[in-house]
Amino acid sequence: MRRLLLLLFLAHPFWCLAQEKDLVQYANPLIGTHKMGHTYPGATVPFGMVQLSPETDTIPYEVDGRYNPTVYKYCAGYQYDDATIVGFSHTHFSGTGHSDLGDFLLMPTEGKLQMNPGTEDNPESGFRSAFSHEKEQAAPNYYQVFLEDDGINAELTTSNRVGFHQYTFPESSEAHIILDMMYGIYNYQDKNVWTFIRVENDTLVTGFRQTRGWARTRTMYFAMTFSKPFKEYGTKDYSKKQVYKGFWRKFDPSKNFPEIAGEQLRMHFDFDTEEGEKIKIKFALSPVSTNNALENLNAEIPHWDFEKAKKEGQRLWQKEFEKIKVETSKAEDMVNFYTAMYHTFLGPTTYMDVNGQYKGLDQNIHQAKGFTNYTTFSLWDTYRALHPFFNIIQPKRNADMVQSMLAHYDQSVHKMLPVWSHHANENWCMIGYHSVSVIADAVIKGNAGFDANKALEACVVTANYRKYDGLGYYIDLGYVPEDKNSSSVSKTLEYAYDDFCIAQMAKKLGREDIFQKFSKRAENWKNVYDASIGYMRPKLSDGSFRKEFDLLSTHGQGYIEGNAWNYSLYVPHDPATMIEMMGGKKKFVKHLDSLFTMELPDEFFAHTEDITREGIIGNYVHGNEPAHHAAYLYNWTDQPWKTQERVRMILKKQYQATPDGLGGNDDCGQMSAWYIFSSLGFYPVAPGSDQYAFGSPAVEKASLQLGNGKTFEVEAIHQNDKNVYVKKIELNGKTLNRHYLTHSEIANGGKLTFYMSARPKK
Amino acid sequence: MRRLLLLLFLAHPFWCLAQEKDLVQYANPLIGTHKMGHTYPGATVPFGMVQLSPETDTIPYEVDGRYNPTVYKYCAGYQYDDATIVGFSHTHFSGTGHSDLGDFLLMPTEGKLQMNPGTEDNPESGFRSAFSHEKEQAAPNYYQVFLEDDGINAELTTSNRVGFHQYTFPESSEAHIILDMMYGIYNYQDKNVWTFIRVENDTLVTGFRQTRGWARTRTMYFAMTFSKPFKEYGTKDYSKKQVYKGFWRKFDPSKNFPEIAGEQLRMHFDFDTEEGEKIKIKFALSPVSTNNALENLNAEIPHWDFEKAKKEGQRLWQKEFEKIKVETSKAEDMVNFYTAMYHTFLGPTTYMDVNGQYKGLDQNIHQAKGFTNYTTFSLWDTYRALHPFFNIIQPKRNADMVQSMLAHYDQSVHKMLPVWSHHANENWCMIGYHSVSVIADAVIKGNAGFDANKALEACVVTANYRKYDGLGYYIDLGYVPEDKNSSSVSKTLEYAYDDFCIAQMAKKLGREDIFQKFSKRAENWKNVYDASIGYMRPKLSDGSFRKEFDLLSTHGQGYIEGNAWNYSLYVPHDPATMIEMMGGKKKFVKHLDSLFTMELPDEFFAHTEDITREGIIGNYVHGNEPAHHAAYLYNWTDQPWKTQERVRMILKKQYQATPDGLGGNDDCGQMSAWYIFSSLGFYPVAPGSDQYAFGSPAVEKASLQLGNGKTFEVEAIHQNDKNVYVKKIELNGKTLNRHYLTHSEIANGGKLTFYMSARPKK
Repeated sequence: MRRLLLLLFLAHPFWCLAQEKDLVQYANPLIGTHKMGHTYPGATVPFGMVQLSPETDTIPYEVDGRYNPTVYKYCAGYQYDDATIVGFSHTHFSGTGHSDLGDFLLMPTEGKLQMNPGTEDNPESGFRSAFSHEKEQAAPNYYQVFLEDDGINAELTTSNRVGFHQYTFPESSEAHIILDMMYGIYNYQDKNVWTFIRVENDTLVTGFRQTRGWARTRTMYFAMTFSKPFKEYGTKDYSKKQVYKGFWRKFDPSKNFPEIAGEQLRMHFDFDTEEGEKIKIKFALSPVSTNNALENLNAEIPHWDFEKAKKEGQRLWQKEFEKIKVETSKAEDMVNFYTAMYHTFLGPTTYMDVNGQYKGLDQNIHQAKGFTNYTTFSLWDTYRALHPFFNIIQPKRNADMVQSMLAHYDQSVHKMLPVWSHHANENWCMIGYHSVSVIADAVIKGNAGFDANKALEACVVTANYRKYDGLGYYIDLGYVPEDKNSSSVSKTLEYAYDDFCIAQMAKKLGREDIFQKFSKRAENWKNVYDASIGYMRPKLSDGSFRKEFDLLSTHGQGYIEGNAWNYSLYVPHDPATMIEMMGGKKKFVKHLDSLFTMELPDEFFAHTEDITREGIIGNYVHGNEPAHHAAYLYNWTDQPWKTQERVRMILKKQYQATPDGLGGNDDCGQMSAWYIFSSLGFYPVAPGSDQYAFGSPAVEKASLQLGNGKTFEVEAIHQNDKNVYVKKIELNGKTLNRHYLTHSEIANGGKLTFYMSARPKK
Repeated sequence: MRRLLLLLFLAHPFWCLAQEKDLVQYANPLIGTHKMGHTYPGATVPFGMVQLSPETDTIPYEVDGRYNPTVYKYCAGYQYDDATIVGFSHTHFSGTGHSDLGDFLLMPTEGKLQMNPGTEDNPESGFRSAFSHEKEQAAPNYYQVFLEDDGINAELTTSNRVGFHQYTFPESSEAHIILDMMYGIYNYQDKNVWTFIRVENDTLVTGFRQTRGWARTRTMYFAMTFSKPFKEYGTKDYSKKQVYKGFWRKFDPSKNFPEIAGEQLRMHFDFDTEEGEKIKIKFALSPVSTNNALENLNAEIPHWDFEKAKKEGQRLWQKEFEKIKVETSKAEDMVNFYTAMYHTFLGPTTYMDVNGQYKGLDQNIHQAKGFTNYTTFSLWDTYRALHPFFNIIQPKRNADMVQSMLAHYDQSVHKMLPVWSHHANENWCMIGYHSVSVIADAVIKGNAGFDANKALEACVVTANYRKYDGLGYYIDLGYVPEDKNSSSVSKTLEYAYDDFCIAQMAKKLGREDIFQKFSKRAENWKNVYDASIGYMRPKLSDGSFRKEFDLLSTHGQGYIEGNAWNYSLYVPHDPATMIEMMGGKKKFVKHLDSLFTMELPDEFFAHTEDITREGIIGNYVHGNEPAHHAAYLYNWTDQPWKTQERVRMILKKQYQATPDGLGGNDDCGQMSAWYIFSSLGFYPVAPGSDQYAFGSPAVEKASLQLGNGKTFEVEAIHQNDKNVYVKKIELNGKTLNRHYLTHSEIANGGKLTFYMSARPKK
């Protein structure tokens, strides 16, 4: 299955028309759609509200009241090795390890009306259809698939808030568009709370869908318009009994009745079509109201020209991609690089209507003043490299994302910055409160297009919310006790890092008191280090370390998504001290070497849910985030050449231009941001500091357009697959005799030159 | 049970303090709370959004999946003969025959925390409490009851959008306020769609409750503030399994956790209290958002002075009552009259925040420009006398109500004016579309403070919506065929009357084309008259009358809420022609006499749901509306003195100053409006015409303050219980030799003098 996708690109018009600077051609949305990447192949624009993408199954979240582990594969709705498509829905996460969304499934069909999706084994028993990858294309803002059951060609494109469908039908007097309001990702019985639909006229339908999923109180509104009037329409109501429906007997609610509500509804819209006739649908979203959805629709795509909409979206992608122009020695690396950029620009997503209104965490409607409101903050993942990447390449957007987090804070009944938030909800997923890292990183790097003092206050208040996840214990004891709160080591380490971030920000803002207090808290990682074994270890509330302890397991050992081998390295803000405590540089190199080379027992993989076996190198887990900085830690030893070697190996092993080319969840762009930084030769080991640790660049050349109008160039002389070691680094022609680059050196513009070699510089 | 309530008034402070002009003292909210009146005894201001009233049971809408007929008693939440109170909720209909609402039940308790309501037999098993009428008071904008179980005195008052609770506790370290978000009127499993609550701080709670009841898609928002910080609080979640609650394990959601959502929730707030300590709660509503609820709260009651709020609301009642000052020979009639006025001013209710925002039928948020938006239009009832009454006494409000109906029309996906609408929903209850009567009556009577031409268009479009309830058949055939659509005779008669209204309005607005067309349609009542039997009779689509036909039954005979005897008289816009068709005046008088005097078989009452046996006089059903004009029809014969006699008899029999004093549902004020008109001596037999038929006044004197600044006076010389016949009528001193008064004669101001006698003028 790991075959190269380049062949597919030959069929892609952009490949043929490619000009020197056409970068859109390189990004391949199918990468990561097989196995654990959890990316979606559909159409979207950079940071777009609409993610219009195919769904390949209707797996329920629960079977017989118990969690169905198969659902995990479908976090993004599509799995590359599936044989059928159920339809196309408008909202998707990219690369998450838990899911939600999948709003408003549309499916075109022909022939006898079928209101059930049918099964994968027998797609003709329902409205789903078989398809093949030979008749499928995916590109930024364009997805096409031929639906074999009924001979319908489906094409999708988008603007920020509008999905644009183009369905080419055969001649028929029974052409249908199904609107399935029951479909959802991570769907379980009763996830649909309420659905409301109005057929405004014979080309316009509006409504909303309210769900209680990962986002517990969520409503998405829509306005849907057809290029051609439907001749008939109808509703099939799968809801629980409508107790008061007696009053509705005045009408036949199943046919041509324009006022529909219930929990579980599907609709059909019927047409006559000529051979090759295209029926187009524009489907606008709003987090606020159907009126706003209509306004979004009319503002963004006031025409019916599918090609025009597609090109406008692709122009946006080209513009974003041009922010980093790279040259690579291998075509596949161009695909990997721009696909990584594509994935990093999929989110956070716009969560605001064209008129500036959005729904807040308090479920009130707010007006964004002077910023774009974003949602979907997978912060435990993305604080590491994605937001630092945005600070370089998307500083304005990153500042708006911080403003969105501050709005969340203002609206939070806890007075907490976001942990993992989406669609006007806090879902509390994972640990820490890494908003503070994102905010501190922006402040430290001079990208604070927001009220930095208010932001600092929000960070301090958040860091003192004692009710949150062991934080009260942490404040009192200096660590989270495992007998009081699970994953206690991970939490202690991450709280300590967050404390460092707050301290750095306070220092920059002249708040010495806060700096002192949080600098002290930032040393709390030491409290869970067990010198007797040389690892971080769960400590109990009586001050003793827990006796039972398994260094390899990731379950119940005081860690989450990482074992002691990986997670013990998590002191990104003070590797030097950590290395010293762990026995000094030599011993530490040994630890790192073992991490990358040891062989794990088979049973380890039996309990790993969100990474493939390929996502692990030795015991180093790249498919999860806690060790993403680990390869760079050799820089703090006497053997930085090992960083260079490991990084290049990871780049090669963990990122491939195939559907299953991602070794773990892309996690809203964090995995891809790691790829971009590392390809460019440096990485932000500790966001919130102004330093980037050097690695080994994989590109030949790169030109970064900074948000401030300046350009920063990277060149790797003698670059090739074997010359993975860095002999010399020059900044603006002057040799750099250190293992890091500072942010101001990038921000000032200039040129970084790596001299590559096949032999390590020992 | 029909004991006079006057004794109760002796305990009422208003009675003691009564000054000459204190009219608030006369209105008794307990009247109609026993048996079929379906009024509520709680606190509210005129046309207020909040109706804060006690609930005496938790009867479910369904038992074992089947309709539970007992629920019908609890349309307003309270039944006078119940022994316990469950709590106090904020929204109630007045006098309806179907129900909804009952939002946000509060209950103070003391001692061991109980989160279940318990049972009526054993109130101490739950948070409900026994109470007695000896320790209960009800007055406009004031309700008080002593809760015996825990020795707590509860007092309620309101402003338009804010409920104000005052609970006097004994000394306790376990005082509680229960917030029951599960309680509802006409409650059934799953009626609660979603509930969202935030504990903003230790005195403020916000949230919303969404239901799928009679209003299918309804959300009410709230903001609740305590006069004293609670020491602890907690939630009991009776919801279905929360599938994703794993992410919430960071917190204990049951105790002091401020972010709560689910379908079925109850909360408790705990206090320490001293003996006699008052804990006060202000509870604001909004149809739009929690932010708006807070704004309503702060705008309307910015203080904690319960007495002040109570007096302010009672001042509003006094102001409204002063619009008609009456003198009666009996104190009880004063109570009846001002209680009737009280009931007529309970609705339609304000459905708009202080900032002018409201939720529309399309579920979007709208801004009311230049009018107050109202909701709860029980139009099949209220078009008859309530809105005509408003046209005299509340012209500005009535014009705003019409504007509210026009906004509904604008927002309707059907493009229909309201039928029976409440809380941004059309519930489609009953028949016809009597908005057109209300609009036409306002236009004809010169109270069109709205765009009359647009209103006419809305009426015409509504009257041509073929999908609605047999209307397509009516348009094509001139009648609704019983084999196609049930209650066909009632519908035909009412559509014909509505057509008359449209025609009259069109004439006044110079639209001759519409006048002609609808004048013709207005004669359609003739199509269902069966001359062979002298009654209206269901006709089939083949043009023949249905053979099976029972003159007495109200079920399946082509009628709804009335039998052939009563409903055959429903040609309010052309009694003269009707009488002629029915065999002339003599025969018609016989029919009417029989109606009022015949004896009905017992089985008739077995099938009558919404009126007491006392609500029927002979076969004349005053407890339902279709024959409300019937007594006035003698005016079109040679024996108008029988109208006088019958009207006085109905006034006496059907309206008594006792809890069970109303013979049928008050129906949002229609029954009470009948009382007021008839007490004043005239009645609008055909709203949409400018005439009022004379009856026999029951007051001695009345002075009506018209909206235009003028005064219209009524005097009944020689008035007493026996002098029920009218010897002579003078308008401004000149004898009137006709049986009707015109609207302009009222609107111009002046004096109407009845000379009463014990003997009929034959």
